[in-house]
Amino acid sequence: MPFVTFLPQNIRVEAASGASLLDAAHEAGAILDAECGGEGVCGKCRVRIVSGPIPPGSADFLPQNLLDAGCILACKAALGDEDLIVETTAASRGQGQFAEDAVDEAAVPDRALSRPLAQRFHLAVPPAAPEDGLADADRFAVALGKALPECVGRAPDIPLPVLRTLAQTLRREDGRVSATLALRGENARIIDISPGHDARSLLGAAVDIGTTSVTVSLLDLQSGARLASQSDFNAQISRGLDVISRINYAARPERLEELRRLVLDTINRLVREAAASKGFAPEDIVAAVLAGNTVMSHLVLGLPPEHIRLEPYTPTVREFPTFIAEALGLCMHPRAEIFLSPCVGSYVGGDIVSGLLTTNLAGDASDPEAMELFLDIGTNGELAVGGADFLMTCACSAGPAFEGGGVSCGMPAGAGAVERISIDPQTGALALSVIGGGAPKGLCGSGMISLIAELFRAGLLDPAGKFDRSGASPRIRVDGRRAVFTLAEAAESATDAPLVVNETDVENLIRAKAAIYCACDLLLTHIGLTFDDVATFSIAGGFGRFLNLEDAVTIGLLPDVDRAKFRFLGNACLTGARLALLSEDRRAKQIELARSMTYAELMTSPEYMDGYTAALFLPHTDGTRFPSVKKG
Amino acid sequence: MPFVTFLPQNIRVEAASGASLLDAAHEAGAILDAECGGEGVCGKCRVRIVSGPIPPGSADFLPQNLLDAGCILACKAALGDEDLIVETTAASRGQGQFAEDAVDEAAVPDRALSRPLAQRFHLAVPPAAPEDGLADADRFAVALGKALPECVGRAPDIPLPVLRTLAQTLRREDGRVSATLALRGENARIIDISPGHDARSLLGAAVDIGTTSVTVSLLDLQSGARLASQSDFNAQISRGLDVISRINYAARPERLEELRRLVLDTINRLVREAAASKGFAPEDIVAAVLAGNTVMSHLVLGLPPEHIRLEPYTPTVREFPTFIAEALGLCMHPRAEIFLSPCVGSYVGGDIVSGLLTTNLAGDASDPEAMELFLDIGTNGELAVGGADFLMTCACSAGPAFEGGGVSCGMPAGAGAVERISIDPQTGALALSVIGGGAPKGLCGSGMISLIAELFRAGLLDPAGKFDRSGASPRIRVDGRRAVFTLAEAAESATDAPLVVNETDVENLIRAKAAIYCACDLLLTHIGLTFDDVATFSIAGGFGRFLNLEDAVTIGLLPDVDRAKFRFLGNACLTGARLALLSEDRRAKQIELARSMTYAELMTSPEYMDGYTAALFLPHTDGTRFPSVKKG
Repeated sequence: MPFVTFLPQNIRVEAASGASLLDAAHEAGAILDAECGGEGVCGKCRVRIVSGPIPPGSADFLPQNLLDAGCILACKAALGDEDLIVETTAASRGQGQFAEDAVDEAAVPDRALSRPLAQRFHLAVPPAAPEDGLADADRFAVALGKALPECVGRAPDIPLPVLRTLAQTLRREDGRVSATLALRGENARIIDISPGHDARSLLGAAVDIGTTSVTVSLLDLQSGARLASQSDFNAQISRGLDVISRINYAARPERLEELRRLVLDTINRLVREAAASKGFAPEDIVAAVLAGNTVMSHLVLGLPPEHIRLEPYTPTVREFPTFIAEALGLCMHPRAEIFLSPCVGSYVGGDIVSGLLTTNLAGDASDPEAMELFLDIGTNGELAVGGADFLMTCACSAGPAFEGGGVSCGMPAGAGAVERISIDPQTGALALSVIGGGAPKGLCGSGMISLIAELFRAGLLDPAGKFDRSGASPRIRVDGRRAVFTLAEAAESATDAPLVVNETDVENLIRAKAAIYCACDLLLTHIGLTFDDVATFSIAGGFGRFLNLEDAVTIGLLPDVDRAKFRFLGNACLTGARLALLSEDRRAKQIELARSMTYAELMTSPEYMDGYTAALFLPHTDGTRFPSVKKG
Repeated sequence: MPFVTFLPQNIRVEAASGASLLDAAHEAGAILDAECGGEGVCGKCRVRIVSGPIPPGSADFLPQNLLDAGCILACKAALGDEDLIVETTAASRGQGQFAEDAVDEAAVPDRALSRPLAQRFHLAVPPAAPEDGLADADRFAVALGKALPECVGRAPDIPLPVLRTLAQTLRREDGRVSATLALRGENARIIDISPGHDARSLLGAAVDIGTTSVTVSLLDLQSGARLASQSDFNAQISRGLDVISRINYAARPERLEELRRLVLDTINRLVREAAASKGFAPEDIVAAVLAGNTVMSHLVLGLPPEHIRLEPYTPTVREFPTFIAEALGLCMHPRAEIFLSPCVGSYVGGDIVSGLLTTNLAGDASDPEAMELFLDIGTNGELAVGGADFLMTCACSAGPAFEGGGVSCGMPAGAGAVERISIDPQTGALALSVIGGGAPKGLCGSGMISLIAELFRAGLLDPAGKFDRSGASPRIRVDGRRAVFTLAEAAESATDAPLVVNETDVENLIRAKAAIYCACDLLLTHIGLTFDDVATFSIAGGFGRFLNLEDAVTIGLLPDVDRAKFRFLGNACLTGARLALLSEDRRAKQIELARSMTYAELMTSPEYMDGYTAALFLPHTDGTRFPSVKKG
């Protein structure tokens, strides 16, 4: 049995002879993307052999120069009997590409801080006296009752580990103690009691658990200030790119447990990094809000998700109990209070409920009659439309194109990603805007939208998504029946390989934008409205730090309405989680929103297929819908 | 470093050369009694060397025949470099002496069963439907709400491990499920949800955690029937005989943890044995009531008890939170509901509060004006006196004599214990009544009381506790300044050693009875009453299956009043725990009793010392207090 070592992670694993290197990588927990499911097509699992015999099987899938350099596709490499050392590429291991400044979060208003998920109180507990007959816990309860008169009835139970040190804690500083509590209406749960009047920061974490990426934001629960944010791919992506493939993978109990561990590992690493970046320990975090879609919420809890995709599409739970961190395996204070954003149903989850907190639909509208459409563009497109009286929601499957998935040189919106392209109308010269500067590594969602819009305006891409094969651009190369656009030559890119976009990539993006546009159109039609009736379009998503509205309208992703009606919310799910962390009212609002939303199952209707097909053009088969869009 | 193996437990431990064998036994968890603290005096740590060199040091402490047989005292044996195999004696390992029929429990009335600590409900959960948008947990809540209309508000949280199997559980038998709940007033906690309508027994455990011994009683929570009982020494006795020595031992954190583990090991073994004896698994137990004195309650929770013995005598907690079994380390269903009987203060604990449930003081008096005195005789004597309007309590230290401790041939009330002695007034011949029949092994508390009363009546013991040295009885032998009474010769005893009682043993029992009598007298005086004002004397304790009232009055333990006023309750603490397990009303009553009790600290008053000294006679220095007692 050979040993395989993965660099740069330096993970060593014993593997079976004959097993594929991709399986060995999964076994080792060294993330290797395998979007195509091991078919040798996507090329994302490319690795380089550093030491040991080069396994055969990649000759048909990689160009000779890469093969000469020792590169192979892990999915096609059968292991022999000898040990291997392999180096994973940044693309194959899918990490390290997120820069903190790429985490797009809206500012949280000052008034947001009101009964955060955990609070600390400084108490003065009277000393033990022979005549009163009170136990330590009784005297603590008296002091707590004075600080918290609104918590009627008897004092909250003291957890056993806290009880075990209570006698010492009360006597260390003459009865002066700090009590950290999770408040739930008139009830309170004791998280910890420590000696003295603790002046250290009290930390909370807001966690956006996306299908593709996870973001952790660290907050000071006493000031509301954001202290740090960390983001990375959800380690589950090595087991499937979308929620359906995760559900399928989780069919066996040990694989469900594996998915739970993978996402926990990602969250816990980000939590540790965020805390360490400001000199804190993870144990300083005493509260967290987790927001994710229904499948992510189920997987992080270890709940089998299979019935989410089986008729009649039933999740195990929609409104989650509150948990303590220890019960979930989160790396925080063991008794940190954990609130999960509630789900509406199988396909509308806590992510959109959380994101709605950032919109007028959360009850802060100056004109409650004004219609608002909230659109969260991710691997799933989820949308909600409503006003004072109703809130209607639906979801559609857009695929991972907007997050850099399913595109030859796609990558998430992080350092090295091309986020914007402009083509000089005179010279045809390209100007690339790269996150963090430097040579480009790949193309993120907003870059892909920008590229397609620019090519369309320049006349280099036709409404059906085919490149101009007339030779008008030297960057367009025709290879048999395929045409390819070269964004950067190998010498210009940071990956030593050319960055190219082919017509299949364009088609994937057109399918994605068609699904989103059509879902919005159909949901409005379903309730008797048109795009013109909507006063505000609130757009959220992980495609980049910003979305160029003209580009999005040009390709037909967003409707051709007054641009002043658009608001871009960035990562609204994360912002909503931060709001919920800081305010009991916002947590109650999430639950209220989830209960008030009506889910419309539109994807199975014939109208959806018609509308989707009509939208598979740039910008649309019906040009009257996009009067402002002109082909270059 | 030699290895020492202890038989019959077959425990092997590596020990340091030069260490005492007693320390090695403690290290191994092989219980060896060491009442005298390793002074070589009590002789209880005697073991036999089966293999290996006989360690020196016991020659001055054991008779030659025992030394010849390879017997040594573990406390005096320093280990050499060679391995040893030693056999512990029944007395030294303090186990196996409890017979089930020696567990003295009162019958529990039929009306006792009313909202037991855990209940099971058979529910019919409606199937998932596409139109209702309900999650599995929502549909379960609907079904539960119908079964439990009194539990207003939202459904109880479903614990994470139960949530993880909920989808499968609901679908296994078409929505028919069994929900096991812990009900607390209008609140409920879900213990488990299982598929189908479970018809198996639902079990609960009542646990009396005594300083000296632990008793577990297994109950059917649906019928109230007692299924099995198991009793044994509290394994903590190897670390000190009374609560003060346990508190001292627990001064270091690792020793506190050791004491916690020791008592848990005892409880868990008894739970397993009780369950197995009726073909159940420990996991079938879904609820338990634990009752013990304040120190035992603290130790089983791992709470440092030091402030219980330091002024102003403050326990960490009096009314305990409810726990789940897993949190305490109890071998039951991991989420079994655990209720601990509340304590009044440092010296009046949950044991007496529990025991009071078996008296009229718990609110069932036909004549509420009638005074009742409740007396629990154990290592601590605890008493309460009250009527309709008040409940006064105090405690005194009696020592372990009534439980077979501190007496040369003392043992607990189990198989082989002499529980009653009669002396033929004509011939002087002894008749011994042995629990379980057969040759006697030792003398339990009731046997010691009986022996002293009979010797006193026969004129062989004077009021000061000195044996008749005139030669009136061949069983009394004078050896220098000590006189000794032989209960059984070596040939007659089950231990191959003579069973003897010396004047120090008699003195220990007289001290114990004097403490109890004086405390009762003083508590009544404190509230302006006399023994004659008391309508009922309720006596509880672990000295044996029954207490001979005449004997107890003869030695001056109980007052010389109308014998019809006495009720003997057996193990009232355990009976009270069973009542609390079966009835929410009785649990509430325990809390109410604990809150209503006023503790009188009488032991430090000068009157106590005067009264105690006056009671150090048989039956009392003031003969007018015992008009019916005549010296033989």
